Amino acid sequence: MARYVIGIDFGTLSGRASLVDAADGKTIASAVYDYPHGVMDSALEDGTKLLPDWALQHPQDYLDVLDHTLPEILRMGGVRGEEVVGIALDVTSSTALPVRADGTPLCFLDAFRHHPHAYVKLWKHHAAQDKADAMTRIAIERGEPWLSAYGGKVSSEWSFPKLWQLLEEAPEVYEAMDAWVEAADWLVWQLCGRRTQSSCAAGYKCFYRKGEGYPDEAYFAALDERLRHVVREKLNAPVLPVSSRAGGLTQEMAARFGLAPGTAVAVGNVDAHVCVLSAGITQPGKLLAIIGTSTCHMALSRTRHDVPGICGIVEDGILPGCWGYESGQSCVGDHFAWLTKSLVPQKYAEQAQARGMSVHQYLTLLAAESAPGESGLIALDWWNGNRSILADGDLTGLMIGMTLQTKPEEIYRALIEATAYGMRVVTENYAAHGVAIDEVYAMGGISQKNALAMQIYADVLGMPVRVVGCEQGGALGSAIFAAVAAGVYENTEAAIDAMAAPVMRVYEPDEAHVRVYDELFAEYVRLHDLFGRGGVDVMKKLKSIRRSAMNNRR
Amino acid sequence: MARYVIGIDFGTLSGRASLVDAADGKTIASAVYDYPHGVMDSALEDGTKLLPDWALQHPQDYLDVLDHTLPEILRMGGVRGEEVVGIALDVTSSTALPVRADGTPLCFLDAFRHHPHAYVKLWKHHAAQDKADAMTRIAIERGEPWLSAYGGKVSSEWSFPKLWQLLEEAPEVYEAMDAWVEAADWLVWQLCGRRTQSSCAAGYKCFYRKGEGYPDEAYFAALDERLRHVVREKLNAPVLPVSSRAGGLTQEMAARFGLAPGTAVAVGNVDAHVCVLSAGITQPGKLLAIIGTSTCHMALSRTRHDVPGICGIVEDGILPGCWGYESGQSCVGDHFAWLTKSLVPQKYAEQAQARGMSVHQYLTLLAAESAPGESGLIALDWWNGNRSILADGDLTGLMIGMTLQTKPEEIYRALIEATAYGMRVVTENYAAHGVAIDEVYAMGGISQKNALAMQIYADVLGMPVRVVGCEQGGALGSAIFAAVAAGVYENTEAAIDAMAAPVMRVYEPDEAHVRVYDELFAEYVRLHDLFGRGGVDVMKKLKSIRRSAMNNRR
Repeated sequence: MARYVIGIDFGTLSGRASLVDAADGKTIASAVYDYPHGVMDSALEDGTKLLPDWALQHPQDYLDVLDHTLPEILRMGGVRGEEVVGIALDVTSSTALPVRADGTPLCFLDAFRHHPHAYVKLWKHHAAQDKADAMTRIAIERGEPWLSAYGGKVSSEWSFPKLWQLLEEAPEVYEAMDAWVEAADWLVWQLCGRRTQSSCAAGYKCFYRKGEGYPDEAYFAALDERLRHVVREKLNAPVLPVSSRAGGLTQEMAARFGLAPGTAVAVGNVDAHVCVLSAGITQPGKLLAIIGTSTCHMALSRTRHDVPGICGIVEDGILPGCWGYESGQSCVGDHFAWLTKSLVPQKYAEQAQARGMSVHQYLTLLAAESAPGESGLIALDWWNGNRSILADGDLTGLMIGMTLQTKPEEIYRALIEATAYGMRVVTENYAAHGVAIDEVYAMGGISQKNALAMQIYADVLGMPVRVVGCEQGGALGSAIFAAVAAGVYENTEAAIDAMAAPVMRVYEPDEAHVRVYDELFAEYVRLHDLFGRGGVDVMKKLKSIRRSAMNNRR
Repeated sequence: MARYVIGIDFGTLSGRASLVDAADGKTIASAVYDYPHGVMDSALEDGTKLLPDWALQHPQDYLDVLDHTLPEILRMGGVRGEEVVGIALDVTSSTALPVRADGTPLCFLDAFRHHPHAYVKLWKHHAAQDKADAMTRIAIERGEPWLSAYGGKVSSEWSFPKLWQLLEEAPEVYEAMDAWVEAADWLVWQLCGRRTQSSCAAGYKCFYRKGEGYPDEAYFAALDERLRHVVREKLNAPVLPVSSRAGGLTQEMAARFGLAPGTAVAVGNVDAHVCVLSAGITQPGKLLAIIGTSTCHMALSRTRHDVPGICGIVEDGILPGCWGYESGQSCVGDHFAWLTKSLVPQKYAEQAQARGMSVHQYLTLLAAESAPGESGLIALDWWNGNRSILADGDLTGLMIGMTLQTKPEEIYRALIEATAYGMRVVTENYAAHGVAIDEVYAMGGISQKNALAMQIYADVLGMPVRVVGCEQGGALGSAIFAAVAAGVYENTEAAIDAMAAPVMRVYEPDEAHVRVYDELFAEYVRLHDLFGRGGVDVMKKLKSIRRSAMNNRR
């Protein structure tokens, strides 16, 4: 009898479920459902206004995804519920919510329905930046040992800054909640009736370290005395390694979706991290880059190496038995979109239309006509700050080399090159700290759509770039974890070997291009260090002058 | 009886004659005539091909200007020829040609009609760059005393590099010519039958210094032994101070134009320099900026100060009895044109059209809505290299501070600001070397058309900018010299006081803006010195990589 697994990927705007053959990873059916509430960043449903930088979600939306997609994929695939042996899911992170002891989100209760702090704080809720900064400062002052595993800096996108903001601005919500849970963990809890924590989200977003646990109570007390017991009061659940079985599907949920009670439910995961499985990566030396509006990088190592400037180093964080490394570039495709939207003249739009191309495709076509170095341009890819390896959101864009002959397609190419240099800084930083990278696996929209960009990446990095033929890396990755949790495979590696997506295309570096890009990269590094490491702080000066100018206007 | 003078301004594409009332400088009539041959930069009239960087003119075009415009302005103004007491003219420079002893241009002779080197080499003929570089190098090696008066660098736009190119590539032309004359001097010679040299062109473009003469024969011999006697063989004519009377109008010319024989003809001038007169500047402390695609600056001083990085310091060069200082910015309005042409999206073009505006006007309107510092951007205005004070054509553009929110109008404003910072570097450099600048006079297209730019200049410079109400600064300036040469006034200062154009509008610096721009200018200077003085030579590295890339393609 064929055995099937279900992987569910909860993104920022929608959730997608895939029904996958556990034998070979083939996707049988897939369904997507848009969140009815989407991202709430200006007001709640009832009109309650939100302040700038807020970003909330409604937990009912996640349940709606399950209700709509699970029966549908079974129907589409012609698969009976009992043929499904496992379910796993992944969610953006840290995306977390306050709940009661029975798992009821506070926002489901009449008393809190109108309270913004009762809702899910989405990963890109940035309103706790001051809390993140204070957490960094106090961690440094106290010499907290965990900070080095997180690039030396707490991000406002992580769990505790959001929770601390909640405590400070809404102590009554803090008081009323019995737990502060990652959305992935909450969904797993809903499915199997057992509250667990994922080693992935706990590790990357909550400073949990295997064998060490969370930061000390004294650290939390130093933030706010009321947080002294936050872990045992609000995060009190077992942290299980990814791939573990969290429990069996409850009777009620099984009936609701048409599945068998007791079906294995795996512990939750983070959406980017499960893509490592879909890409078939089980060994060190390979870096997975998920290249879209921004880029996430994931790498594995058998041992722990402190790599500065990355987002997190977590044991069992990606693959059980490995140290998982996460880093990122905060702006990649967004650069190209900025140019295309803001600075491309009419005749380009017309030419693109005449050829039945998007402006992106037309600029790429023109950019491909020039060789490395011919534009005379170089840029620092910091239009949205720098995540790795400088971890500095106050950095801004730079471009050098413009002449009166400079054309939009040359700027387009220079921006692609800049993001490739940015990734090379990351790979070289890994290598310099003991995590050698020999080849890059690419997923994400740009890897599928822009062959020029991928060739430039191979040429700049000086190593092959393998584009994985998988558009739903999250759902497939979760399906692989579902198969492991269901016991179809002995371990995760075996499941990956059987089920991962194939490499669709390999971009080999062109030696002549590599030589030119080596020269240009040396200039990039010079500018990167000059402007990014405090030597010439003009970007921060400009930001500070800008802030004063904006304030004076008010 | 009213007395009239005629000023004739020979530009790059056309010549304009103005009939001016010598009493008050009022222009009675003005006529323009486009050169039939324009700029010959790809081929001669007979199809003879020209190499890249060549730019020639046909001397007949200048005579055609006289034939068409002089009778016309007399007719338009209802003025009889005998009421005209003086004529003066100015031409771009160094724009020079080889002629026979009787003044006949070699290109008028059948033997040389097909020879490119027999024609007028226009100021922007850049094909003698290697000669200019060699002249600089050899002057430095020999410790030539005149080099410091020319910013330490010989420009390919000046006279001797062009003449040396002619000698090397066409010795038969060199042999056949009796003189190498500035176009202005040649035209004066045609009018009055006497060959003279203008202290302005000789001073700024031929290294002639009052009391010192031309560089030594030994210097010319060090360039090429055949040039040892170049001055006495080819430039052998008296150098007269500007404002002098070169002679009286010949019988033949008088008849040709309907003027009186013997009418005073002044020595020739350079087009930018005569604008100082039109602007009414007779005193030190004032800088005239002629702001167009590029910007020329002129200033006066009673004494000589060696100011590094400027184009030239010449006694009697602008106003008799003063040291005249010339400097420049090689790219000003060209920056704005580049952005408008290359990088402004369709909706801006549509919005501009809907308002009946040019794209420039629409961007200016939007840019005016933001305050200094609000864009967070800063640029180095080097899209076409830097003339003063770095004198380095290999520098290129730089922009810092871009974010995903950066808009075209912010880039437009940042480019305006960058050219203003560039001018402030020039004014501060003058002041630091003994030539204090207290106020700026502005002429040229941008000063008339863009009020936002002029306000930004006042705010950045921290001093008033007085826009002169004169669209034909060259023709009026020449008319003033004509009045002096005719003896209408005792001296040039008196003529200027009576005849100069009025200030049309004064832009006073806004104190709050000055404070913000002081901060931003400090950052500009930091970047200017870092990238312009060799600290970070990335622009040159990029150019060198670019050249290799282009060569590899061939």
